Amino acid sequence: MTAVVVTDIARADAATVDALAVHGVATVHEAMGRTGLVGTWPAGIGLRPIQQDVRVAGTAVTVLSHPGDNLMIHAAVEQCRAGDLLVVTTTSPSTDGAFGELFATALHARGVRGLVTTTGVRDTAELRALGFPVWATAVGAQGTVKATPGSVNVPVIIGGVVIHPGDVVIADDDGIVCVPREDAASALSASDARIAKEDADRVAYRDGQLSLDRKGLRASLTDLGVVYMTQQEYDAR
Amino acid sequence: MTAVVVTDIARADAATVDALAVHGVATVHEAMGRTGLVGTWPAGIGLRPIQQDVRVAGTAVTVLSHPGDNLMIHAAVEQCRAGDLLVVTTTSPSTDGAFGELFATALHARGVRGLVTTTGVRDTAELRALGFPVWATAVGAQGTVKATPGSVNVPVIIGGVVIHPGDVVIADDDGIVCVPREDAASALSASDARIAKEDADRVAYRDGQLSLDRKGLRASLTDLGVVYMTQQEYDAR
Amino acid sequence: MTAVVVTDIARADAATVDALAVHGVATVHEAMGRTGLVGTWPAGIGLRPIQQDVRVAGTAVTVLSHPGDNLMIHAAVEQCRAGDLLVVTTTSPSTDGAFGELFATALHARGVRGLVTTTGVRDTAELRALGFPVWATAVGAQGTVKATPGSVNVPVIIGGVVIHPGDVVIADDDGIVCVPREDAASALSASDARIAKEDADRVAYRDGQLSLDRKGLRASLTDLGVVYMTQQEYDAR
Amino acid sequence: MTAVVVTDIARADAATVDALAVHGVATVHEAMGRTGLVGTWPAGIGLRPIQQDVRVAGTAVTVLSHPGDNLMIHAAVEQCRAGDLLVVTTTSPSTDGAFGELFATALHARGVRGLVTTTGVRDTAELRALGFPVWATAVGAQGTVKATPGSVNVPVIIGGVVIHPGDVVIADDDGIVCVPREDAASALSASDARIAKEDADRVAYRDGQLSLDRKGLRASLTDLGVVYMTQQEYDAR
Amino acid sequence: MTAVVVTDIARADAATVDALAVHGVATVHEAMGRTGLVGTWPAGIGLRPIQQDVRVAGTAVTVLSHPGDNLMIHAAVEQCRAGDLLVVTTTSPSTDGAFGELFATALHARGVRGLVTTTGVRDTAELRALGFPVWATAVGAQGTVKATPGSVNVPVIIGGVVIHPGDVVIADDDGIVCVPREDAASALSASDARIAKEDADRVAYRDGQLSLDRKGLRASLTDLGVVYMTQQEYDAR
Amino acid sequence: MTAVVVTDIARADAATVDALAVHGVATVHEAMGRTGLVGTWPAGIGLRPIQQDVRVAGTAVTVLSHPGDNLMIHAAVEQCRAGDLLVVTTTSPSTDGAFGELFATALHARGVRGLVTTTGVRDTAELRALGFPVWATAVGAQGTVKATPGSVNVPVIIGGVVIHPGDVVIADDDGIVCVPREDAASALSASDARIAKEDADRVAYRDGQLSLDRKGLRASLTDLGVVYMTQQEYDAR
Repeated sequence: MTAVVVTDIARADAATVDALAVHGVATVHEAMGRTGLVGTWPAGIGLRPIQQDVRVAGTAVTVLSHPGDNLMIHAAVEQCRAGDLLVVTTTSPSTDGAFGELFATALHARGVRGLVTTTGVRDTAELRALGFPVWATAVGAQGTVKATPGSVNVPVIIGGVVIHPGDVVIADDDGIVCVPREDAASALSASDARIAKEDADRVAYRDGQLSLDRKGLRASLTDLGVVYMTQQEYDAR
Repeated sequence: MTAVVVTDIARADAATVDALAVHGVATVHEAMGRTGLVGTWPAGIGLRPIQQDVRVAGTAVTVLSHPGDNLMIHAAVEQCRAGDLLVVTTTSPSTDGAFGELFATALHARGVRGLVTTTGVRDTAELRALGFPVWATAVGAQGTVKATPGSVNVPVIIGGVVIHPGDVVIADDDGIVCVPREDAASALSASDARIAKEDADRVAYRDGQLSLDRKGLRASLTDLGVVYMTQQEYDAR
Repeated sequence: MTAVVVTDIARADAATVDALAVHGVATVHEAMGRTGLVGTWPAGIGLRPIQQDVRVAGTAVTVLSHPGDNLMIHAAVEQCRAGDLLVVTTTSPSTDGAFGELFATALHARGVRGLVTTTGVRDTAELRALGFPVWATAVGAQGTVKATPGSVNVPVIIGGVVIHPGDVVIADDDGIVCVPREDAASALSASDARIAKEDADRVAYRDGQLSLDRKGLRASLTDLGVVYMTQQEYDAR
Repeated sequence: MTAVVVTDIARADAATVDALAVHGVATVHEAMGRTGLVGTWPAGIGLRPIQQDVRVAGTAVTVLSHPGDNLMIHAAVEQCRAGDLLVVTTTSPSTDGAFGELFATALHARGVRGLVTTTGVRDTAELRALGFPVWATAVGAQGTVKATPGSVNVPVIIGGVVIHPGDVVIADDDGIVCVPREDAASALSASDARIAKEDADRVAYRDGQLSLDRKGLRASLTDLGVVYMTQQEYDAR
Repeated sequence: MTAVVVTDIARADAATVDALAVHGVATVHEAMGRTGLVGTWPAGIGLRPIQQDVRVAGTAVTVLSHPGDNLMIHAAVEQCRAGDLLVVTTTSPSTDGAFGELFATALHARGVRGLVTTTGVRDTAELRALGFPVWATAVGAQGTVKATPGSVNVPVIIGGVVIHPGDVVIADDDGIVCVPREDAASALSASDARIAKEDADRVAYRDGQLSLDRKGLRASLTDLGVVYMTQQEYDAR
Repeated sequence: MTAVVVTDIARADAATVDALAVHGVATVHEAMGRTGLVGTWPAGIGLRPIQQDVRVAGTAVTVLSHPGDNLMIHAAVEQCRAGDLLVVTTTSPSTDGAFGELFATALHARGVRGLVTTTGVRDTAELRALGFPVWATAVGAQGTVKATPGSVNVPVIIGGVVIHPGDVVIADDDGIVCVPREDAASALSASDARIAKEDADRVAYRDGQLSLDRKGLRASLTDLGVVYMTQQEYDAR
């Protein structure tokens, strides 16, 4: 595993990224055929937002570090530009507080939109005050060293998903989804279509229509052998 | 395991439910002789609120689904009426996002008071905005299918507690407690009595009285062999 | 294991405690040579705040209880005075709700600054309303008994750290750090020095300076064999 | 919650229990319509055997204890007779070593067939040497007290299943299944039927028949839209 | 996500696979530059062998199923041939017992070498008796359905590693490593070289040589500031 | 945190260590007043033996390393002598495979009796074959580096217990217990006394005496309000 910093990655189209940022993680995941969810599988990874009611999208700059070491995050800052979102992981599990407010200050000044990290994060109150959103596996103050090599802008695997540098990463209260750079446009149009359908559904449900009827699910229940009965019938089985 | 939808469940008395809704989970649990707590045992189940400072009580409409499948939630909506609280679990553990904002819109329109689910939930920001409270094992966007049968309004076991359809379910920041339908009135009067006692305790403690004295615990300490000593005596043991 | 209540513990200097309260957990941990973090190791312990954006420091009054029993917390209240912070653990893991709003009322009246407990805590909404901050392993309403002896003001080990009665305990959104009583003054001066350095760093990063340059890390990258390359070079390896 | 010892429980028929002991946990669970599995849900409970390749069945004598207290196990010994299997749980999670070789010696002398406990167990090497099989949540030596009341032979809930005193409990390397006393005969005949069918399946599969054909699953694949393609076709999508 | 069965995958060279089977997981992982480890990251996935002291290598036939559904394992059997190793995962976490002795009988008859699955497995005693080795996330009897589509022989991600159909999968008591098909030859020669070096190391260490000397690590200790001192000097710091 | 190697630690008396090795972890823990258990608290640490039916005792040589780095284990080998037991932990959680068969070969040649480590371990089949017993938090092949300083023979905290260099560490199937060096003699005599008492208990229980009678627990049950009743009385409450 060579330690490299890749310097000139291709990024997803900025306008598409911004348009995708309007859609939630659940919508984009469904629109992509129920794929791309970061942190869904396996459950143990537990990436969580440190703030509430924030949704961002950005192009991934990736970091692969040794556990307990944040040297490569220092190297990654230089590779970030406005519209990016930093994605950090380690070669084996580590919940040390590899990222804090000073890093966020530097990234914020460069227009970076947030951080997704499988490590821990610290200075969480200050990060919220700064308005720099973070999704992390842990909150913790444990300090790290700068002693081992790693890589910037290589593909990383988080939560069962490959994230390539330049891919679109969308994060909100529900989690994180990765849209491969080359699929960004199609994911956007599929998401737009899904939203239109859901808007109609919402109105119908608010008006009292049942999804059993709207989606034609009564037949499914019958086909699957689901039986309706009264309490008296149930107790008498 | 027959797949059934029971259609005419008996529900706990509405006025009693509303009166219980004033009491917290801890109070009702204590008043019932330290029973009824959902999610206490085993610890792993981890049902948590997605909002803060909300307390609700409702009559349970229950769902038992296959993992990764939300067909039976669709069937359950029709069985819900005002004052109910939906309770969802699966036949084996599943943290998929089986419930989201469209379901909540439909249930909200029917006067349903909230959701307790051992599955995952998504659209959490939208659910908070809608004012539909949820207690769930996980937050996650992973989509589900509608392919396998299950049941509505059968007894379910969550967190080491049997919940029957029509039971009172109370949920707040501390967790969830289930009051069997036939015990609702006695649980209410026991809770009222406990609150009265705690109100008097609160005033006493605010005034500086010690619980050691108020509860007569000094004798217990002596009986159990607890010894008071100075630091010097302790270091010299 | 004798069951004792030690009555006259020495406490860290109050002015030093208050000065340390200004610094965050991460700062003090780093200033002490990356030591003292409560709950860092092992990860499983998971002490978390039930409130957000609160930082406190106090002198530890410690409790060691049997699981499922809060008798010794009753005994500890009497030993607490203004400026203290209660630290509770059990001889084996327990997430029962051993502490709630009535205890907090009594401690608040005595000027106690908060609670750190490896047990569960209940009445969390009320505790936030009261302004009594708590860091706990779990939130849960499960009631406890008063049947077994334990100790007050003996050394306890939480999260891989020994906490002696009278030590300074600092807690915020990032976690908890313990400063041994005799190290309080040196930890304060080291923290002050660190803050001054970080203030300068923050300005520099806000102005766009890179930590790679400011900390002289480019040489480290080279020494460690990290190679810069273009995407084209990377793909052609 | 009254603390009681129920002294004259009805037990499942001994011959039926012994016949069920031949079938594995998986077989009986399937034969009962995929119900009865102890420890399946939620996953966290993790009851595991401390020995390998042992299968037992017995009639349940149940214990509900306070965490960290084994007094009621002492009370339960007297209620056990030959052919029973002891089932222990606590009112909140506890992994203390509440059971060890001395208890096993007493139970073994009475003809008890084994132990299922959500607590910890100790003296595991000695238990294996004695031939007393145990399924437990944890292995650990942490000692317990005898200070709090509990119950013997009341219904308990473990792993999402209600176990009544006198029910049949079957345990092997795959886990534990509970057969309600009144269902023992029907579970046995359903298990016998299932075994006969599986014996025929086994011969067929050993001879190279495909379950796709034997179970008619090719049509299901087609109905569900599963498409067969070559690698070349797949890569060209 | 289209549901496909890919029928004619390319497989790693059989002789190379057999030669790699001699090397352990740790050796091959190190020889590949510390990559390829299945289940290392994140830790939660916990794939474990159900037997002891068994090492196998085979070419991967992959299955991606819906949770709680084993239909696609039925489809996969037909795609397996001698020398293969079946690799099963689900689109979201599932510990149901999707695989048991009947599947193993069919696969064993086809010369398949074992199973790696992120689901649960049942009939573990029978699987050991049959000599069909399994690495699984869980042991459990919970039954599954055959109701939802999935894929066979598409790339899957397990434990932070992409496994393509036809890759070499090596599994032993230490875990699982995946060698990409095109890297099999180079991984073998690197492993051979590593073994030769370790054989020499072993002899040296057995003879009492210190790795500090053999690997020249004394200089590293000095460079990193590690100080040797007596207990008296340490206590006097 | 200075990085030091302490070279001349005092060790517990060898004959006492060997005598303690006969007693199990549970016995010594009880004999010391239910203290000293490594890994009991918190539960998450999970130190487990990789072999079965092995019990060892030795004098601790301790290692405190950075996560993902085994440099200090290399330094520790030189400090080990016959009768020692190596105890390894890291400054933050790490399950990497920091220890394997080559280390064991070197230690075995020096007469070291085993390893207790909060890291992962690899080459487990080879370690069992060599007869070098290991208790570890994880089994895993993930490789480590030699890049960061740490300490040898400083006090470490594992599983809620302080282990000083030279303390007696006893490990068996039930877990690990640490006896402080200065308490070794008293722990031995207390363990001997406990064994004598348990031997008498065992005979009595084998002969059918009830612990309720032998320990006088019937009075406790009555005092605690435990009520005996028939099933009929219970059902009629």
